Amino acid sequence: MKYPEPINKLIESYSLLPGIGIKTATRMAFYTLGMTETSVKEFADNLVSAKTNIHSCIICGNITTEDTCEICQDATRDQSTILVVEQVKDIIAIDDMNTYNGLYHVLGGVMSPVDGIGPDDLNIKLLINRLREHSEVKELIIATNATPEGESTAQYLAKLVKPSGIKVTRLAHGLSVGSDIEYADEMTLKSAVLGRREL
Amino acid sequence: MKYPEPINKLIESYSLLPGIGIKTATRMAFYTLGMTETSVKEFADNLVSAKTNIHSCIICGNITTEDTCEICQDATRDQSTILVVEQVKDIIAIDDMNTYNGLYHVLGGVMSPVDGIGPDDLNIKLLINRLREHSEVKELIIATNATPEGESTAQYLAKLVKPSGIKVTRLAHGLSVGSDIEYADEMTLKSAVLGRREL
Repeated sequence: MKYPEPINKLIESYSLLPGIGIKTATRMAFYTLGMTETSVKEFADNLVSAKTNIHSCIICGNITTEDTCEICQDATRDQSTILVVEQVKDIIAIDDMNTYNGLYHVLGGVMSPVDGIGPDDLNIKLLINRLREHSEVKELIIATNATPEGESTAQYLAKLVKPSGIKVTRLAHGLSVGSDIEYADEMTLKSAVLGRREL
Repeated sequence: MKYPEPINKLIESYSLLPGIGIKTATRMAFYTLGMTETSVKEFADNLVSAKTNIHSCIICGNITTEDTCEICQDATRDQSTILVVEQVKDIIAIDDMNTYNGLYHVLGGVMSPVDGIGPDDLNIKLLINRLREHSEVKELIIATNATPEGESTAQYLAKLVKPSGIKVTRLAHGLSVGSDIEYADEMTLKSAVLGRREL
C-alpha cells in the first residue's frame, strides 16, 4: 500500500524543514490529520502570513512588518553604537539581557570561502553606507560568532571600517561564566589569557 | 525586542507538532522566512489539502481520499483474513513486506486505563459488525504492539471474537532475527521460550 497523494505531499513539505527526515515528517503529517480543522487552517494561514508580512528592515536587516524595525524607529536608543550580528536571532539574545541599548546591523551570515560566501553576499554595503551617512556613530561592536568564519568576517569588517576613525570592538572571548578552567578547550583558554584584564 | 506578531504565531503553530519545542519551532519559523514564496504557499496548501481530503476508510479505518481505502477495494486480496493493527502506519510496515495479502482493521490505539482509553474509544464496534456481516472471514490476526496495553487489548479482542468460531491469532513474539540471546531482555526471552516450535 502507498500513502494517498495528499499525505505524501505533506510529508514532502515537512521534510523540507531543517533537521526533519522522512520518518519525523511522516509522524508530523499523521499528527496533522489528528489536529482540528481550525488548527490546521490557522497553521496554513500563519505560514503564508509570516512569509508575506515579514520583511527585512531597510536600515539594519532585522525582521519587521513595516519598512524599518522597532529598534531603528526607537529614538531613545543610543544612536552612537551599532552592534553587528550574523542573524536576527542574535539580536533577540543580546537585546533580552537589557545591557545593550544601541542599534544593530544584521549581516545575514558570515564569510565562508568553502561555501562560496564572500563579502558581497552579506549585508555589508548597507552597513558602510549607514556609517557614512550617520556621522553620530562612534563605535561598531562586532558580535559575529566565535567560529573561524565569524572571526575572519570580524577582521574583514574592522579593516574596512577603521580608516574612517570609528572605534571597532569585538565581544570578549574567554571562559564561560561559572565554568572550570580544567574543562575549557585550548582555543577558549588561549583567548582568556590573551584577553586578560587588570583587577 | 520582541518578534513581530506573524512570526510569533508561526512559532506557536510549529510548536504544536509532536516533539517540537520553542527553540526548534523558532528555528523552523526563521527557516520558513528564507524559503521561496511558492514553497511556503505549497506547504500551506498541502496542510489544508491533507486535512480536508484524507478520511478514514468507512470499513477498516485506514486512511483514504475516498469512502473506502485501496485495500478494501482490492477484490484480489484474501477476504478471509483480517489483520488488526493499532495505527495506519502499521499497515504500511506490514504491507510493504509483501508477505500478507489479506485485509486490515485499524483500532486507532490501544486500551489504556491510565489514559482513560477503554474499548469504546477504539474502532472495535466496526470490527465486530464487520465480522458479523462477512461470514467469509476465517481468521483474525491481532497485531497490536508488544506492550502491556497492546497485549491486554489483544486478550480483550480474542475473548470477544472467539465465541463466534473465528480463529484468533497473535503475531509471534520472540528474539529479533539476527539478535544475540545474551542481550535479549527477560520478557522477550520468556516469550521466545514459551512460543518455541518444533523443527
